[in-house]
Amino acid sequence: MEENKLIRQRLEQLRNRMKESQIEWCYITTGDYHNSEYVTDYFNIRDFFSNFSGSNGTLVLSMEFAGLWTDGRYFIQAEGELAGTGIKLFRMLDEGVPTIPEFFKESLNVGDTIGFDGRIVPATLGQELAEIAKNSNGSVCAEFDPAEGIWTAENGRPMLPCSPVKLIKTELSGISTSEKLEQIRDDLKKEKADALFLSKLDDLMWLFNIRGNDVPCNPVVLCHAFLTMEQVVLFIQKNALTREAVEYFKNMQVQIREYSEVSEFLKNINNAGHIMLDPKNVSYLFLKNIEEKQTVIKCVNPTELKKSVKNEIERKNLREIYLKDSVAVTKFIYQIKKKTNLEETNEFMAAMLMDEIRMQIPECFGLSFPTICGYQANAAMMHYQADAQNAATLQAEGMLLVDSGGQYDGGTTDVTRTISLGRVSEQQKEHYTRVSRGMLNLSNAKFLYGCTGRNLDIIARQPLWEAAIDYKCGTGHGIGYMLNVHEGPQSIRWQYNQSNHETVLEEGMLLSNEPGVYLAGEYGIRIENIMLCKKGPKNSDGQFMEFETLTFVPLELDAVMRENLNKDELERLNSYHKQVYEKISPFLEEEERKWLFNATQII
Amino acid sequence: MEENKLIRQRLEQLRNRMKESQIEWCYITTGDYHNSEYVTDYFNIRDFFSNFSGSNGTLVLSMEFAGLWTDGRYFIQAEGELAGTGIKLFRMLDEGVPTIPEFFKESLNVGDTIGFDGRIVPATLGQELAEIAKNSNGSVCAEFDPAEGIWTAENGRPMLPCSPVKLIKTELSGISTSEKLEQIRDDLKKEKADALFLSKLDDLMWLFNIRGNDVPCNPVVLCHAFLTMEQVVLFIQKNALTREAVEYFKNMQVQIREYSEVSEFLKNINNAGHIMLDPKNVSYLFLKNIEEKQTVIKCVNPTELKKSVKNEIERKNLREIYLKDSVAVTKFIYQIKKKTNLEETNEFMAAMLMDEIRMQIPECFGLSFPTICGYQANAAMMHYQADAQNAATLQAEGMLLVDSGGQYDGGTTDVTRTISLGRVSEQQKEHYTRVSRGMLNLSNAKFLYGCTGRNLDIIARQPLWEAAIDYKCGTGHGIGYMLNVHEGPQSIRWQYNQSNHETVLEEGMLLSNEPGVYLAGEYGIRIENIMLCKKGPKNSDGQFMEFETLTFVPLELDAVMRENLNKDELERLNSYHKQVYEKISPFLEEEERKWLFNATQII
Repeated sequence: MEENKLIRQRLEQLRNRMKESQIEWCYITTGDYHNSEYVTDYFNIRDFFSNFSGSNGTLVLSMEFAGLWTDGRYFIQAEGELAGTGIKLFRMLDEGVPTIPEFFKESLNVGDTIGFDGRIVPATLGQELAEIAKNSNGSVCAEFDPAEGIWTAENGRPMLPCSPVKLIKTELSGISTSEKLEQIRDDLKKEKADALFLSKLDDLMWLFNIRGNDVPCNPVVLCHAFLTMEQVVLFIQKNALTREAVEYFKNMQVQIREYSEVSEFLKNINNAGHIMLDPKNVSYLFLKNIEEKQTVIKCVNPTELKKSVKNEIERKNLREIYLKDSVAVTKFIYQIKKKTNLEETNEFMAAMLMDEIRMQIPECFGLSFPTICGYQANAAMMHYQADAQNAATLQAEGMLLVDSGGQYDGGTTDVTRTISLGRVSEQQKEHYTRVSRGMLNLSNAKFLYGCTGRNLDIIARQPLWEAAIDYKCGTGHGIGYMLNVHEGPQSIRWQYNQSNHETVLEEGMLLSNEPGVYLAGEYGIRIENIMLCKKGPKNSDGQFMEFETLTFVPLELDAVMRENLNKDELERLNSYHKQVYEKISPFLEEEERKWLFNATQII
Repeated sequence: MEENKLIRQRLEQLRNRMKESQIEWCYITTGDYHNSEYVTDYFNIRDFFSNFSGSNGTLVLSMEFAGLWTDGRYFIQAEGELAGTGIKLFRMLDEGVPTIPEFFKESLNVGDTIGFDGRIVPATLGQELAEIAKNSNGSVCAEFDPAEGIWTAENGRPMLPCSPVKLIKTELSGISTSEKLEQIRDDLKKEKADALFLSKLDDLMWLFNIRGNDVPCNPVVLCHAFLTMEQVVLFIQKNALTREAVEYFKNMQVQIREYSEVSEFLKNINNAGHIMLDPKNVSYLFLKNIEEKQTVIKCVNPTELKKSVKNEIERKNLREIYLKDSVAVTKFIYQIKKKTNLEETNEFMAAMLMDEIRMQIPECFGLSFPTICGYQANAAMMHYQADAQNAATLQAEGMLLVDSGGQYDGGTTDVTRTISLGRVSEQQKEHYTRVSRGMLNLSNAKFLYGCTGRNLDIIARQPLWEAAIDYKCGTGHGIGYMLNVHEGPQSIRWQYNQSNHETVLEEGMLLSNEPGVYLAGEYGIRIENIMLCKKGPKNSDGQFMEFETLTFVPLELDAVMRENLNKDELERLNSYHKQVYEKISPFLEEEERKWLFNATQII
């Protein structure tokens, strides 16, 4: 095996800096200053030092040791990328593999210091590391930036992105920032808090009715805010502010401070009373800075629940945007289906086609995540990403899974269809039918107000569980509005964990509904519609709730075994298809419409 | 309104004693020294002082004030019984009605003392009262027995019951006490506890493989146990011990102490290390006694989960006993159905008939709860109890709900059927059909290991929720083995409460499955089968679980609307009825068998 000299040299430099700083261990995780799910290239520090480029991984380094932890999606990739670096791969969740906290507990010598960039490590995690270090009479150094002096602009580190701030008009946001600020201040009063420190990017976007482009697929700008009863301080790169934005914040009496000044500001807060923050979504260093002089109330950001309940105007816009998005996906399916020379197309090209059609919609300003387009066995990998080089060629048999979504003025979309390209095996049809039943049964669920996603999950999963099949992920996630495609606090999952807080489903919440079957090496099936939670009948038994489906794209009748649907399920399928045709056909060309008529026929 | 002089005189006596003891408030709740669900007459102290005889109520008394809190089941009864006593009724959960803690918070004067019998108040509740008193610079007196000197044997107080201890052979218990003690001690070690104080009666019965008759319908003897790694001390009324029982405990080296000595014993424990106890199931006074000198680990009794998972021998016995019990209920239905002169029968007589048939089974030694037999509107009251005086006469129309169960050598049963007596309205049939679907769908559920009752509840409720109907109770509860008909920790409920710990369903757990429709003033429908949780297929997706039904009594085909069942549901109903006929018919007379054949025909 050839040595990876570049990486070894970088690790050498880092170890020298660790020695100078009297740090025995260095901890480099994936993240930005906001605990975002996706991060911009500026933050690929772990990649820089390890050569491992997956989206999830943590590097742990000492003078003698280097280890990288990642999850099952990346074992093969990590093995390849780590080759020759001297870094040992730790396969997370494999038997006998310690977690990082377990590893530290075993490996720390008395008095050892763990160094990390406390701006990047969330407070809950930093506290755990500090606790472990303390137990061996050591400590943490939260101001150790591994990249400093090693990975710089001079040797190719990308700039911190600085996309211009885009202001969202009230026609799109539904509620003005001043109204939102009032609501949040009311929440603070209820919790007896005097101030809020907010670091979560999508919450900040929602609160200030702004958007940006600092993280791929997530229309956010990097910023933090400190909010009291009287004032609002926004920490943001001043270069990101257009003249319009400067005016906007000035009119709202929002004080602007440079993005990088937040840490210093937090250290010097005086007499601010009780400061609320969410330790899962605030960096360890920022929490420490505040706690030096102030009292902290730790709880979930009040913005989170408010953001997840879409207001009337957002709902109206969402209905329109989902219709347009559904038309795009339907047109894509038609184009794939009519191809007579499928073998000239591969997964990557199909994904490009999907993206092109979607981007033609005037309101669309980007994708909500990179399009997943997997043919047969590749579709069994939940997060499969075809690239131009290794994409599988399509053939006139089996099924193609396409999971995609867009960012629009008026909403964020997410939709999956698995379409047949020709002959489909009986087993695959049987599985496709079970997935359809689960998706449709959940879409039609009626439930009392007070239910959480944990009550509902089994409705989608039951047709699969009956056949002793499971999918190893949740059934549904929340979705942002012109924001991140994954959004809390609501979800549809079944697993029990007392320490997780469950969220009651509220009118106005968006949820995905995406059961699936994943047979490694064979095929993957997923069908995903997006639903809006709304009120149903109310009577002396309580307030009943139900879902309004926003996605209108045909299911694959060629893969549905009619005889496996019971009467109710058949009615659900036919009624859904009737709606699909009624809503989508007016936006189609003649040929497309003919095809859709057939594809949505009553069975 | 006439004065209730007797009650006023008793309250006067109690207030005098309060004055002597310098106690401003007296708190009298319903309970025994074990926080049992049902209590023996000896503990009807609140009834003695208030004249209110319901199963749930708390009396709060000061020099000027007397109030009684009870729940919706008892509002009408309490109004009548409190008339003339000067005691004010507080309707729990009605709008604007304070809870008792809220009431105390508003009403306590600085320095006030709340007196109660700390042997009867569970530790969690006592601590809440102590906290409230402390906040107004007052305190509690936990050694104030309101009955002392006022309600005594001389003026009619019943004796503390003292039924003889019955030993359960291993053929019935499946596991010997020494083996169970070993398991519990292993659990203690895992929690780093050195001892366990156990007060929960059914857990004690399970652990020592004994039964008794000290509480109506609950085959328990009053006792407590203190268990260390080396010794076991059992506090029990020595008069309850047969010579055989004395021998039995001696052989196991269980030390016997008198039941009343427990409090003194707990005060004087020395150097016992960490003592585990369940503060929900240990009295406030006992906890206080222990805490004077010892360290306490508060957690759920380790006996609780072990008891709920029935062992192989218990399961085998349960199958046999449920079959016999099902034969009894089937025979009862037949006898009611064949009556040509229904109007000569009332609810009370029907309940008596059910009890007589059941008691003829040789293994039966009592009822597991008083039989509920409600005709039409009376069945809409979930806990309706007909008595000889006010029982409704049956008529050849509508439906009769019968919820009953027995105590057997080999199990405890619980079953509900709602049977038609003649013409049944279309609406009632529609509702009956929905209830049947819910019950059968849940019985046939397949789910991954890790599910709790909260995951499953919606399967039974969905056919009702679809019609905007709910039942205001859980779908299922655990059931004891030759023990209490309600048993934890598992249950099937949907409501979310983060502070409640949910229990994963384990192979060997018994659960009831009892959806219903309750229309006040019209009718009540409930169908209840008992199910044993068991393992299903296991594969790479995990361990699947399912239920084995133990109850085999026909559903009411006259009230089933065939067209409202989908194919799967119809198959479930017919398959269940096929099993009912196959299993029950061998134990029936010729005429009964003919009827059952018809009652279980394929539809």
